[in-house]
Amino acid sequence: MSLTVYRKAHFNAAHRLYRKDWSDEENYAFFGKCSNPNYHGHNYELEVGVTGEIDKNTGFVIDMNLLRDLIKEEVEDSFDHKNLNIEVPDFKELNPTMENIAMVIWNRLRRRIDEKYGISVKLYETPRNYVIYDGK
Amino acid sequence: MSLTVYRKAHFNAAHRLYRKDWSDEENYAFFGKCSNPNYHGHNYELEVGVTGEIDKNTGFVIDMNLLRDLIKEEVEDSFDHKNLNIEVPDFKELNPTMENIAMVIWNRLRRRIDEKYGISVKLYETPRNYVIYDGK
Amino acid sequence: MSLTVYRKAHFNAAHRLYRKDWSDEENYAFFGKCSNPNYHGHNYELEVGVTGEIDKNTGFVIDMNLLRDLIKEEVEDSFDHKNLNIEVPDFKELNPTMENIAMVIWNRLRRRIDEKYGISVKLYETPRNYVIYDGK
Amino acid sequence: MSLTVYRKAHFNAAHRLYRKDWSDEENYAFFGKCSNPNYHGHNYELEVGVTGEIDKNTGFVIDMNLLRDLIKEEVEDSFDHKNLNIEVPDFKELNPTMENIAMVIWNRLRRRIDEKYGISVKLYETPRNYVIYDGK
Amino acid sequence: MSLTVYRKAHFNAAHRLYRKDWSDEENYAFFGKCSNPNYHGHNYELEVGVTGEIDKNTGFVIDMNLLRDLIKEEVEDSFDHKNLNIEVPDFKELNPTMENIAMVIWNRLRRRIDEKYGISVKLYETPRNYVIYDGK
Amino acid sequence: MSLTVYRKAHFNAAHRLYRKDWSDEENYAFFGKCSNPNYHGHNYELEVGVTGEIDKNTGFVIDMNLLRDLIKEEVEDSFDHKNLNIEVPDFKELNPTMENIAMVIWNRLRRRIDEKYGISVKLYETPRNYVIYDGK
Repeated sequence: MSLTVYRKAHFNAAHRLYRKDWSDEENYAFFGKCSNPNYHGHNYELEVGVTGEIDKNTGFVIDMNLLRDLIKEEVEDSFDHKNLNIEVPDFKELNPTMENIAMVIWNRLRRRIDEKYGISVKLYETPRNYVIYDGK
Repeated sequence: MSLTVYRKAHFNAAHRLYRKDWSDEENYAFFGKCSNPNYHGHNYELEVGVTGEIDKNTGFVIDMNLLRDLIKEEVEDSFDHKNLNIEVPDFKELNPTMENIAMVIWNRLRRRIDEKYGISVKLYETPRNYVIYDGK
Repeated sequence: MSLTVYRKAHFNAAHRLYRKDWSDEENYAFFGKCSNPNYHGHNYELEVGVTGEIDKNTGFVIDMNLLRDLIKEEVEDSFDHKNLNIEVPDFKELNPTMENIAMVIWNRLRRRIDEKYGISVKLYETPRNYVIYDGK
Repeated sequence: MSLTVYRKAHFNAAHRLYRKDWSDEENYAFFGKCSNPNYHGHNYELEVGVTGEIDKNTGFVIDMNLLRDLIKEEVEDSFDHKNLNIEVPDFKELNPTMENIAMVIWNRLRRRIDEKYGISVKLYETPRNYVIYDGK
Repeated sequence: MSLTVYRKAHFNAAHRLYRKDWSDEENYAFFGKCSNPNYHGHNYELEVGVTGEIDKNTGFVIDMNLLRDLIKEEVEDSFDHKNLNIEVPDFKELNPTMENIAMVIWNRLRRRIDEKYGISVKLYETPRNYVIYDGK
Repeated sequence: MSLTVYRKAHFNAAHRLYRKDWSDEENYAFFGKCSNPNYHGHNYELEVGVTGEIDKNTGFVIDMNLLRDLIKEEVEDSFDHKNLNIEVPDFKELNPTMENIAMVIWNRLRRRIDEKYGISVKLYETPRNYVIYDGK
């Protein structure tokens, strides 16, 4: 019998979608204005879900303050007000699409959260586009 | 290892819930004011989810602009500013409840999106009532 | 020293924008798909503001339950799940644009709320289009 | 082939997180300011999902007005404007964490809704923290 | 030529609406379930507006981080996870209606923000009820 | 007797807050992480208000499709998916704070909208920070 608790967070960042081995024209043909070499940016809204049983002693699945702090350490401190392509090593060889950002966040949290818990990541790139990844 | 990407869209439409083989009184008894023969209407808010693997070459599950255009062609162009009962052939013999509208949308998209992808449809009829259908 | 308190409400309705003295073609040329003779509809979201001084005895500007009931009587009971053009007499000779609906609502409330209070009406026709009217 | 329909509701309540067998200091050490002996409170926002097949005769999974009334009877009437610790018997021996509140709501609804339907409960304790429980 | 910048914040608190010189019955007759002697509570959502000219040297009306910190010191630190009636001295003799809470917040901020700026306070008690006060 | 109609729009952009005559250290001391020389970015959400009388012939204050197109031409086409510092000439010598962006948008629209109308611009830089400018 398990529940999932969710915590919201956010970060603002610049990025550019492109492949290094393509020319600007090729990148524009595929990624459109998202490939702007001068970058654009987003307010990323994040929801992290943690699935597990209720601890009978506390009534918690996980301490939400602990979860909030983990998200701050693993995501906000690394991504907020950053240029994802230039300043976040995870995207050195990885295109910072919302899909890849969600996977990077999931992997970072997976290393910090006990394996008994399931993890899901919901990431809004804009109010109209978002992605969910749960490691399956 | 798969993710789901989501795209929002919307359309405004009039409709009436009723059965042709029932009298207005019988329809009112069951469907209440939703059976008003003069119609009422909604701002339908739609979220379409597409589930698949990340393309290693692009970092995309699916091109979101392609998805946006498909939704426009299959849903917005057919439903927006329309009377669903009178003007949308899918509802000629089908009561345009939010459940049936969601299934019609899912079926329309299923014909256009590669079978390797899963599809889910979330449809808000009002900010307080919505439905999810994923074809299972 | 005055404050404004706000109460939200909502109603779903069908309508059509058109002039009776214009042909369907002329109406379409000006009002576009909003002039569809078969109607379309919206979830109207309403916020009513009432401006006045705090009653020192209660700490209220106005009893919010009273305001809620007034909005129900004057707006929801008349407009919800209705065809505005056909079933709401206020729009017999008045095009039910969001501007005119807001004015009709303001006038209906003005007759019921003590003159010592100011009134404002904010009406969302869609999540992207809205109007404010405060009687000035 | 099943769909899930969702209905939103809300209630405002006071609560305190603590264990009776711990001192105020021990409770503060674990539950932080949520253990304030004078209580604090929340606007709880609730979404109840009901999963089932579409009734071919009506186009409904379940009558949403029936669902709305059930939620009112089982949740709003018991919880709204109450002190959960003192006034809601379900929490006499149960810490009113969002996880436990969600389970209590799920169990109350499970007794009232036909077993052929699945039920899910999503409960926002704040706009930033929420929980989902579906009985599995 | 002036602009208004806005910063959002929030706090969760318990409260009770009542007059000490009235009986519980009299309070219930006027304030309804909001007078529950065991308290209930809300997620208060706050928006503080500061009106002034743009500083040509910085492009700011006011440093938003400074404003964020002021709101934390004057509002969140005093009100969050508190029982407003018992633990916040401002409400010792003042009924903690949303109107009075908004005035208390405005007065607290007025003492800390330079007189050259105008101040407005928007306070949501629930997603459906809110108040605006700007000191006029 | 006038009303204000509002239209929402949005654009995503990268920017950096800084003064060219300050060192990176001086800029960081004042603008904090917003001065990151590699840029960061936002989803800017925009609401444009147009104040005027209702045209008795149409029931409109202004044609909302015309307003939508104007916003697209003057704001979205110039700002969306751009680096504001590098690619938008208005910010060549002007720090792209939300205050200055709002003024630039207001001035661009003022040149295109008949002087009989009032104009207001509300710009969200994040869901928690926004600015309003109405030219007064």
